Amino acid sequence: MSSKRIIIIGGSAAGPKTASKARRMDQNAEIILFQKEKDLSMASCGFPYYVGGVFDDRNQLLCTPTGVTRDPDFFVTTKNIIAKTETEIIKIDKTAKIVIAKDLKTDKDTEYSYDKLVICTGATSFKPPIPGIDAKGISALKTMSDADFLRKIRDEKKIKKAIIIGGGLIGIETCEALQLAGIKTAIIELQDQILPFLDYELAKKVENYMKSLGVEIITSNGVSEFIKNENNELTGIKLQDGKEISCELAVVSIGVRPASKLAKEAGLKITETGAVWVDEYMQTDDPHIYSAGDCVETKHLITGKNVYSPMGDLANLQGRVIGENLVKGNKRKFKGVLQTGICKVFEYSAGATGLSKKQAIKAGYNNIETVVNAGPYRPGFMGATVIVSKLVVNKDDRRILGYQCICEGDISKQIGMAAMAITGKLTIDDISNADLPYAPPFSLAIEHFIVSCHIIQNKIDDGLKGITSVELKKRLDNNEKPFLIDLRGPDEYEMMRLGIGEKLIPLGKLKNSLDQIPQDKNTEIICFCKISLRGYEASLILKNLGWTNVSILEGGIMGWPFDREK
Amino acid sequence: MSSKRIIIIGGSAAGPKTASKARRMDQNAEIILFQKEKDLSMASCGFPYYVGGVFDDRNQLLCTPTGVTRDPDFFVTTKNIIAKTETEIIKIDKTAKIVIAKDLKTDKDTEYSYDKLVICTGATSFKPPIPGIDAKGISALKTMSDADFLRKIRDEKKIKKAIIIGGGLIGIETCEALQLAGIKTAIIELQDQILPFLDYELAKKVENYMKSLGVEIITSNGVSEFIKNENNELTGIKLQDGKEISCELAVVSIGVRPASKLAKEAGLKITETGAVWVDEYMQTDDPHIYSAGDCVETKHLITGKNVYSPMGDLANLQGRVIGENLVKGNKRKFKGVLQTGICKVFEYSAGATGLSKKQAIKAGYNNIETVVNAGPYRPGFMGATVIVSKLVVNKDDRRILGYQCICEGDISKQIGMAAMAITGKLTIDDISNADLPYAPPFSLAIEHFIVSCHIIQNKIDDGLKGITSVELKKRLDNNEKPFLIDLRGPDEYEMMRLGIGEKLIPLGKLKNSLDQIPQDKNTEIICFCKISLRGYEASLILKNLGWTNVSILEGGIMGWPFDREK
Repeated sequence: MSSKRIIIIGGSAAGPKTASKARRMDQNAEIILFQKEKDLSMASCGFPYYVGGVFDDRNQLLCTPTGVTRDPDFFVTTKNIIAKTETEIIKIDKTAKIVIAKDLKTDKDTEYSYDKLVICTGATSFKPPIPGIDAKGISALKTMSDADFLRKIRDEKKIKKAIIIGGGLIGIETCEALQLAGIKTAIIELQDQILPFLDYELAKKVENYMKSLGVEIITSNGVSEFIKNENNELTGIKLQDGKEISCELAVVSIGVRPASKLAKEAGLKITETGAVWVDEYMQTDDPHIYSAGDCVETKHLITGKNVYSPMGDLANLQGRVIGENLVKGNKRKFKGVLQTGICKVFEYSAGATGLSKKQAIKAGYNNIETVVNAGPYRPGFMGATVIVSKLVVNKDDRRILGYQCICEGDISKQIGMAAMAITGKLTIDDISNADLPYAPPFSLAIEHFIVSCHIIQNKIDDGLKGITSVELKKRLDNNEKPFLIDLRGPDEYEMMRLGIGEKLIPLGKLKNSLDQIPQDKNTEIICFCKISLRGYEASLILKNLGWTNVSILEGGIMGWPFDREK
Repeated sequence: MSSKRIIIIGGSAAGPKTASKARRMDQNAEIILFQKEKDLSMASCGFPYYVGGVFDDRNQLLCTPTGVTRDPDFFVTTKNIIAKTETEIIKIDKTAKIVIAKDLKTDKDTEYSYDKLVICTGATSFKPPIPGIDAKGISALKTMSDADFLRKIRDEKKIKKAIIIGGGLIGIETCEALQLAGIKTAIIELQDQILPFLDYELAKKVENYMKSLGVEIITSNGVSEFIKNENNELTGIKLQDGKEISCELAVVSIGVRPASKLAKEAGLKITETGAVWVDEYMQTDDPHIYSAGDCVETKHLITGKNVYSPMGDLANLQGRVIGENLVKGNKRKFKGVLQTGICKVFEYSAGATGLSKKQAIKAGYNNIETVVNAGPYRPGFMGATVIVSKLVVNKDDRRILGYQCICEGDISKQIGMAAMAITGKLTIDDISNADLPYAPPFSLAIEHFIVSCHIIQNKIDDGLKGITSVELKKRLDNNEKPFLIDLRGPDEYEMMRLGIGEKLIPLGKLKNSLDQIPQDKNTEIICFCKISLRGYEASLILKNLGWTNVSILEGGIMGWPFDREK
């Protein structure tokens, strides 16, 4: 019978999961979990939905599905785990295998020896060194007390205008929460797009949608100063371009940093990004110490390089791995991540797995193909919204590098399937005939994800040439004049059109309208329609008739993220 | 430049897809498509939703997303494909490479030579040789005219009671359609369960749900006679057990058979099940003839054996493969199927991919492990329904053989991910740490599918013993008396309980209640709770204390498909 002592630092996600799994594997170990905060095992990914009023009972963030609060009493009674809250581990002595715990209520330090130690210290939100950052009314949405602060603001209904600094996942979720709370919100993003896990054209479409709901979005700009009044209360911000915006609340969500100070001071190996280094067993460079969650780096399964991926699901999975390895020796591996992410954006969702085009290029892939695909997620007669997706493929081995989707509705199926496909190292050819669940309430006969693989096969194998909306816009802005054909019918054209100089020639009339097309067969011609399927058919007809430089606008009008004439 | 003639027999799904893809690959081939019926390219999987009134415009079953009817004019104008409707191919002469087409309007026969021939003759619904089957009021839901017939019945609102014969996918979809049309419906199923792609315990839960909506479901019984009046109108049915049920409408949906008569008469190789034999290129044993859709058999990707899988999505995928191979030579393969299926059942959905336990055993797998898993699909604070799933794993290589799920809501994500996982030959260990899209609106931090893999790891690697509801019920019915413990709290017990002789011992009180448990350490003990997670914790505690025969009721109360006391 084992009677070793396992000490776990951190009681949010990875910590409690590690403790629970270790207990299941070993009924006799002494398991002590230390938590600096008052609350334990908080569903922190749920904070935005609590702030936004999707639910009102704060305890739901802290309780089991049957309503029992996961407090120290719960942990000891049902799991035989000692959970010491409001207790901070201030020092690890890895030689002596001892930690020093400070009781934050009494300020008293106590020494605990350990057989195995697990560091789950999480992350802290990055607080940029901007003048005025100490003003009242500036928050993050990382901790339970941040959530309490913002929920109080919601309930008091006093604040009318807020600024979100940072347009990533948390920034967007916070924006939705505040808008739902009746607070007019603006997002300030340093990059030229929100949601950096998406490529530009998809992010831009989400941006358009959010703007249509009244959210102000300012990209390629940052905050240079927080403006405050004599009471140190926030009254506005000054942007880097000098413009001022008044607001009573600012939420900073420009990313988090691994909370690795304790591990570093203990002499454990730290990575370049400042995270705790662990191997596939989630073991640090000290064999008695493991680490998981937002304080570690893990391997990217595609690039093979280490990446920082602070996500709640990964923390839980890693905690389970450690729980087993603590007891059984290093048996389970956590092989790595795809940096899969998903975000609800009001009625939309946006998600990605693997590499975007931008990321793939940055990672050194120089023989890639991509396709933007727009199409209804199920047959029109069932009522269907349009998915816009982008697939990134390595042409060397035809494997998928990444997939990203946006949709009014739930995009998690497509992202989940793509994540599984990447995990299984599937090629576009494997996926192109995959046997997926089809019935009209759920998908098209050919699932959107499969269609993406079909189009990219057409590009790689059959000479289909595509141009992205971003590229076309750039060239039009440069006063280039490719010959543009919209292949839809006149009724459709009347209802909606790009108005970028295109000529309307319905597909069925194309062959009798060849005189309307430049007769120089080397003229660049770009075909499109609503989703560019008719555009595709037209491009094949024209190529067959001798035009040599024909391409389609990928995603057609539905994938176009810029202003339309109509 | 090619100028070959491609003839395609069949204009529903595989045929038009083949024609369209062949055209895209070759602008110059002559492509002629023959269709016996009047309509072309019907969305036949949408028939139940048209019958049920989910939409009212019949043309939506026949038109492109932009509303253009896919009639012969559409095919010739936009695709340069000649589509001859109401024309039946009555003979194939594969030596002469000729087909004979009968114009059903004029009864005139015409000969057409071909370079390549594609047989997409589909399937016909099986009409059982039961007395009275010729009565008025007996239909199937396979053809457009079946759909028209049933939709008319809906609109006339005269018929009050219908019988569905066969509880498979189409039977269930038809049942929903008729109930939505205000017709009281009963399903008669020969087997002991509906939805044969599910194992019994999941099918039974769907059955319970349907019964709760007023559907009558009679299993392990068949129709021995259709009763009719002097006008040859259906007035009722007689069951095999002698019972009579009056009804004015019967829909027969006991499966379809490949329509391979033409191919057989031409001397093409036919499989044991009567389907057209094709290889991975969808080529028959005649190199000039291909075949796809509901008339062919394909390889099962897990068992390697040929199976008959008449599904609309597969027909489309196979048609695309043929379209390419016709033009480029045999380049694309259709490697096979997983017999993935999904079905909307009112507000529920039920789906499966790969093998059920029943099918795995039948296929000869003798070292399998399964687990029934019940749990909310996302955090309770977001509002969550419960998924009940069953995972089947081959213990020899730890690969997934099959996954089946039911849920109030949409189960297609879990089935789609599992289908991808099986396609990628992933093991439970690969999936157990998969990086899937997580945010509270979309899933639990540990996705349901991953949880299933975790539980089965616990079973295979760590000695967790499970018993299924079906097995426990059988043993209780045999008057066996395992000691049953419900580990929930008294409040929960008051609201809902099995009442099968269980003792209530809340998990937190277990260690102080050991005197309530049989002291003979070899007594069989079965632990459970709402989903058997607390049951699992209890089983570990008891095993650690020396009880040797402890298991959990898989899926707990949520997975229990039989009557409950409360």
